[in-house]
Amino acid sequence: MHHLRLSVYRILETSSGKRRGFSLAFNIVLITIITLNAIAIVLHTVPEYNRRFTQLFYDFELFSVLFFTIEYLLRIWVCVENDRYRHWFWGRLRYLFSASSIIDILAIFPFYFTLFATDLAIVRILRLFRIFRLFRISRYSHAFRMIQRVVTDKKEELILSMTFVVFMLIIVSSIMYYVEHTAQPDKFSSIPATMWWGVSAMTTVGYGDIHPITPLGKLLGGLAAIMGIGLFALPTGILVSGFTEQIRNQKVTVIRRCPHCGKEIRDV
Amino acid sequence: MHHLRLSVYRILETSSGKRRGFSLAFNIVLITIITLNAIAIVLHTVPEYNRRFTQLFYDFELFSVLFFTIEYLLRIWVCVENDRYRHWFWGRLRYLFSASSIIDILAIFPFYFTLFATDLAIVRILRLFRIFRLFRISRYSHAFRMIQRVVTDKKEELILSMTFVVFMLIIVSSIMYYVEHTAQPDKFSSIPATMWWGVSAMTTVGYGDIHPITPLGKLLGGLAAIMGIGLFALPTGILVSGFTEQIRNQKVTVIRRCPHCGKEIRDV
Amino acid sequence: MHHLRLSVYRILETSSGKRRGFSLAFNIVLITIITLNAIAIVLHTVPEYNRRFTQLFYDFELFSVLFFTIEYLLRIWVCVENDRYRHWFWGRLRYLFSASSIIDILAIFPFYFTLFATDLAIVRILRLFRIFRLFRISRYSHAFRMIQRVVTDKKEELILSMTFVVFMLIIVSSIMYYVEHTAQPDKFSSIPATMWWGVSAMTTVGYGDIHPITPLGKLLGGLAAIMGIGLFALPTGILVSGFTEQIRNQKVTVIRRCPHCGKEIRDV
Amino acid sequence: MHHLRLSVYRILETSSGKRRGFSLAFNIVLITIITLNAIAIVLHTVPEYNRRFTQLFYDFELFSVLFFTIEYLLRIWVCVENDRYRHWFWGRLRYLFSASSIIDILAIFPFYFTLFATDLAIVRILRLFRIFRLFRISRYSHAFRMIQRVVTDKKEELILSMTFVVFMLIIVSSIMYYVEHTAQPDKFSSIPATMWWGVSAMTTVGYGDIHPITPLGKLLGGLAAIMGIGLFALPTGILVSGFTEQIRNQKVTVIRRCPHCGKEIRDV
Repeated sequence: MHHLRLSVYRILETSSGKRRGFSLAFNIVLITIITLNAIAIVLHTVPEYNRRFTQLFYDFELFSVLFFTIEYLLRIWVCVENDRYRHWFWGRLRYLFSASSIIDILAIFPFYFTLFATDLAIVRILRLFRIFRLFRISRYSHAFRMIQRVVTDKKEELILSMTFVVFMLIIVSSIMYYVEHTAQPDKFSSIPATMWWGVSAMTTVGYGDIHPITPLGKLLGGLAAIMGIGLFALPTGILVSGFTEQIRNQKVTVIRRCPHCGKEIRDV
Repeated sequence: MHHLRLSVYRILETSSGKRRGFSLAFNIVLITIITLNAIAIVLHTVPEYNRRFTQLFYDFELFSVLFFTIEYLLRIWVCVENDRYRHWFWGRLRYLFSASSIIDILAIFPFYFTLFATDLAIVRILRLFRIFRLFRISRYSHAFRMIQRVVTDKKEELILSMTFVVFMLIIVSSIMYYVEHTAQPDKFSSIPATMWWGVSAMTTVGYGDIHPITPLGKLLGGLAAIMGIGLFALPTGILVSGFTEQIRNQKVTVIRRCPHCGKEIRDV
Repeated sequence: MHHLRLSVYRILETSSGKRRGFSLAFNIVLITIITLNAIAIVLHTVPEYNRRFTQLFYDFELFSVLFFTIEYLLRIWVCVENDRYRHWFWGRLRYLFSASSIIDILAIFPFYFTLFATDLAIVRILRLFRIFRLFRISRYSHAFRMIQRVVTDKKEELILSMTFVVFMLIIVSSIMYYVEHTAQPDKFSSIPATMWWGVSAMTTVGYGDIHPITPLGKLLGGLAAIMGIGLFALPTGILVSGFTEQIRNQKVTVIRRCPHCGKEIRDV
Repeated sequence: MHHLRLSVYRILETSSGKRRGFSLAFNIVLITIITLNAIAIVLHTVPEYNRRFTQLFYDFELFSVLFFTIEYLLRIWVCVENDRYRHWFWGRLRYLFSASSIIDILAIFPFYFTLFATDLAIVRILRLFRIFRLFRISRYSHAFRMIQRVVTDKKEELILSMTFVVFMLIIVSSIMYYVEHTAQPDKFSSIPATMWWGVSAMTTVGYGDIHPITPLGKLLGGLAAIMGIGLFALPTGILVSGFTEQIRNQKVTVIRRCPHCGKEIRDV
């Protein structure tokens, strides 16, 4: 029994040592199912496909949920093989509240809930939860670990620049509201409504559904576009530089030596 | 009396030494009130909320103004504790014209003014002044000191690039006006009107309310978009590089030492 | 005969050594014909020019195809002079399947095919293949070799960032679909339809044909614009940095020497 | 006479040595007149101002042209004081064809021409030439010398990236034309018309007057937006990096020394 649990653990969680082949095969199957789920979630909303392949979508949904449920139960059973969750009860409880386990449960529980739900509004919202299945792929992709590291590294800068963005947005939108409200009372109807213009203008998206028409509003809009874009480009610039640093760090593994004693230096 | 003034000064202005706990508590209260004011200013313009919570908005407004007024008077009373404003009269006068004091007065005076004002147009404009309450938060945020330093550092570059932006805008808009005016006399009605297109195109916002339709106008618009974006991106690029430099400067002050011999390492 | 083949090879393929003048002349003629083809392909679709210059377009097309066909046959004939394709049969066969040879055949075969094709739909699609004539210019431009090197160098980063872009696009579009579908069932009709909004918003193009109108949709759209732009800017940033690196590498190969003592200087 | 000519030369052309005060005063007057001309050119096209201040605009135009004409004639008279144009006839002729002299004549000749012109179309075009008066300010601004240096420095890169931009534009627009033409024959009417979409999409301006509506067109448009933006951002990136390098070079005037002999190094 214990031997079996260790084997299952090795297949499900590690990808090195014994059972490597089985583990690889299992992970390829899992990634394939997740990718197919992504395609199903996207295509399922196209009325034409939904009508034509109703049965196929339902069968695949059923199969996916069963597969994920069995996998989830297995993971809870074997998690005690991991040193971090060694206790048979408290370890498993702690595993249940780990980030990856929560993603796993969010990916399957909506299905079971909708079986009993009668309120269509709730069913619709629960369907949205199926996109958590996509996040399951984060278990494999080292790209997601990178994004995590970038956000952790640049936390301060991101918070700082987001503060500017929000502050700038409120200031510019407040002024614009008082300038444009009388000319376009239906579009610049309130400051929150004007903030939609502010985001659209200062991220340079510019949908064109709302824009100033008075000369003063255009002047302010022009100034906000030229200067404000800088502040709104800050989070973008920070993310981009964070990624390029991470990528460079992975590449540059050149050995550095102390100029005084000649010994190797790591993580100075 | 003098002892009391020093205590109040320490609570209001410094956040170190004696009365640290009181100072922290006061500042948290103040930041909370400012943030609530920001939310009130924004939501106040939504007709639905304005109707439903008229009394709440008015009461909060009254409370804020009273709080800010008392705080303002206290600050004037205690400012003489600061070495820069030591004289009981001239010091206080100089404090009254300091940047932070002017922001403080701009945040409260519109309320008192509107009590006596009968002209609704002036009342509406004065309401806009309430957003100065948001700037009061600049007293706390080191982010604002950073933006100040960035602008000071990059003043030359910003002025230089803004000159280009204005020059480029006039040249491109003048040519576009002569090219498109006959085809769209209502949209490209004058060079100032065409400048609105110019800003919108060269910041890549592109609202779509105004754009060239003649082949020559489209050719010019395309060239202006490709080349002009470079010049319009300059202030953005300068701001972004200024921020990243400031952030790097704040971080890199740690002296690195070789873990083997303990000597300082420069430029490894 | 062999002597003639070598001469033709030198004219067609190399631009150094003997027959340099002829080679240069031939290449200038070829580049001119390719450029004229580009202009013809573009202007040919303008109804006015097409009507007026039907005969001229057809004659130039005929001339181009004949020129390219003769050139193609000559290249096959002489390719054995190249050490990589030395065998009279297998060498030529390998040459036929080389990248540049495939571009050459794609540039001419549609013409011959359309002579026999009766289905207009196929003829229309084949006309599109004529743009492969433009790729023939890649034989000359060292710019194309640079783009190739940039993509090769930054392959990992590009794949990584494209993964993020696709993932982000699916997540944001799925959420937006569930948020906006009931308010705008005709525009946000399905997740694939919403992905068109997603691309347009997060690349900051913002055509304005589709945008959220509900408050929650606008909030999500604003957040997606501010944060998502960062991820969508990654491939752009990687390409731009790749190019600037390539350009710098080409420039910095000069050895710097001290003007006083003549010794080589590194890292001044 | 010769003494007077030298004095005038010093006032007009140099801003150091004798007559420094006069020269400064003259240049301030000239910059003011040029700036006023810029304002006049822009406001002159606003029907309301044009109607109200017709006489003022005309008087200022007359004054400006007279001032510029006298200044131009004086410059020709005194240019022989400059060593480059020393010969009384050939020197003056060479001066007439120098860049700054051509800008000067383009700024005034349209006025004289329109006095005799009867064709209104020509008069309208000639009015456009008045914006050359703005370029006259380039004589003073060191910003313009900087832009010149940036373009000179980055010539290769700019040409290379512009080649990519044009190539990419033709390829993407050609494919998009064949994809979208049947669905929107009036908007994607020809490849040149589609190129307007291409520029608008790949510079991320996105006016929204023209965009793909077929699923295949949207897929292509999305891919073009994500990948193509990179190439279109290249000229922008090159200009921005060129400017920042120039600005840094002006600042960093630290003396560099050879590490071998310790002597100062300039322009290594």
